[in-house]
Amino acid sequence: MKTLLVIGIGAGNPDYITMQAVKALNRADVFFLMDKGQSKDKLIDLRREICERYITDHDYRFVEAHSPERERGDVDYKASVDDLNLAKQHTFERLINEEMSDGQCGGFLVWGDPALYDSTVRILQAILVSGRCEFEFEVIPGITSVQALAAQHKVPLNRIGRSIEITTGRRLAAGQVSDADSLVVMLDAEDSYHHVADQETEIYWGAYLGTPDEILISGKLKDVADEIERVRKAARLANGWIMDTYLLRKP
Amino acid sequence: MKTLLVIGIGAGNPDYITMQAVKALNRADVFFLMDKGQSKDKLIDLRREICERYITDHDYRFVEAHSPERERGDVDYKASVDDLNLAKQHTFERLINEEMSDGQCGGFLVWGDPALYDSTVRILQAILVSGRCEFEFEVIPGITSVQALAAQHKVPLNRIGRSIEITTGRRLAAGQVSDADSLVVMLDAEDSYHHVADQETEIYWGAYLGTPDEILISGKLKDVADEIERVRKAARLANGWIMDTYLLRKP
Repeated sequence: MKTLLVIGIGAGNPDYITMQAVKALNRADVFFLMDKGQSKDKLIDLRREICERYITDHDYRFVEAHSPERERGDVDYKASVDDLNLAKQHTFERLINEEMSDGQCGGFLVWGDPALYDSTVRILQAILVSGRCEFEFEVIPGITSVQALAAQHKVPLNRIGRSIEITTGRRLAAGQVSDADSLVVMLDAEDSYHHVADQETEIYWGAYLGTPDEILISGKLKDVADEIERVRKAARLANGWIMDTYLLRKP
Repeated sequence: MKTLLVIGIGAGNPDYITMQAVKALNRADVFFLMDKGQSKDKLIDLRREICERYITDHDYRFVEAHSPERERGDVDYKASVDDLNLAKQHTFERLINEEMSDGQCGGFLVWGDPALYDSTVRILQAILVSGRCEFEFEVIPGITSVQALAAQHKVPLNRIGRSIEITTGRRLAAGQVSDADSLVVMLDAEDSYHHVADQETEIYWGAYLGTPDEILISGKLKDVADEIERVRKAARLANGWIMDTYLLRKP
């Protein structure tokens, strides 16, 4: 039997890694690197750094796989993600069949937590259902950028006894959010906080969380929304990519 | 200046602790233990075990403080929590003033993540605002029971591109939840999943997550809701306490 480890390595800061993740890193014979886009080189370097720092007296190798990109532009979002996941599924199957021998252990290093807006677990479950590969797999949770955001701003995510909604920039822009008084927004490429009507809403924004490039801005939307847009644009230009998230709290 | 470290130590499994938390543990001169209720002894033992395992060549001590309990029964929930937090605030002020000297570092060991349904950060911010104590504080995120739940069931928390609501059993029972198709329920003392109308809803339930006593049950509500209630009641009786959480996913 082959074993796959889906290892949450936390958001940016190598110190966010858990003991459980360190143990998992030390079990893997091969790591599959699937990054893409402009952040690719930086993210692969960070993964290599994590392996070098935490793997002791154990041989391992990296396999970089071409990661299919989602079709952008005027396409149906759900359909484009489904297509992407099918393409990823084929890539994963090839890696498992060609790059691992029986009894070996393969690792996927997932930023943040594999349970939150990551497709690795979903893809592995789909492959098992298809019956085209046989393997066991384990999931190791990791610190998400949402948790890093709250820790760095020193705020709770929830109000006392109240709910939190975690959603995407796309849904916020489309008005597809509930009336939860704490709203966490991820994957926002479009400054969707400008769509929030109540300008007294507090925003806690963070980019490159947990890394030396970290930027934090907080305040009422009416006071800081334009600043966030400006800082975000400049940082994206300077670094070639940006990863950011924010908490919106109703007044 | 005094420094307080609010350290997320993860949900149950000592391997959930992060490298950042280990470094923080090694900085603290004193740890404040504030547990209460029937789970108190078990939780204090687990904290001591974590300190023994991860703190190297450094002296530290524990201070157990009487933790005020929330007034139960027929009282306003928000008011009773506010009262509780005010009482806790006075306890914290006493600890900081009496148990720490200038330049010392004190640690609060928080189960899960300090940002999620925990009052430590809120209380420290309130003390700083009051001006009655001076200190700096840092927050170290930790793996929550929600993440442990998803990892152990090997499921993502969200559907592709969709939202997640994190809420309480109290709100679910009162119907105060949105129509998010992924609903995570915490702090449920009353088997509130029985209030979900659609019996085709999938539930992923877990108790004592990350510990040797861990129990996992999943399936459609119509098939497993009664089993969960039965198992939960028996486990609570056997252990004297229970900590559980679950994910509800619409069909």
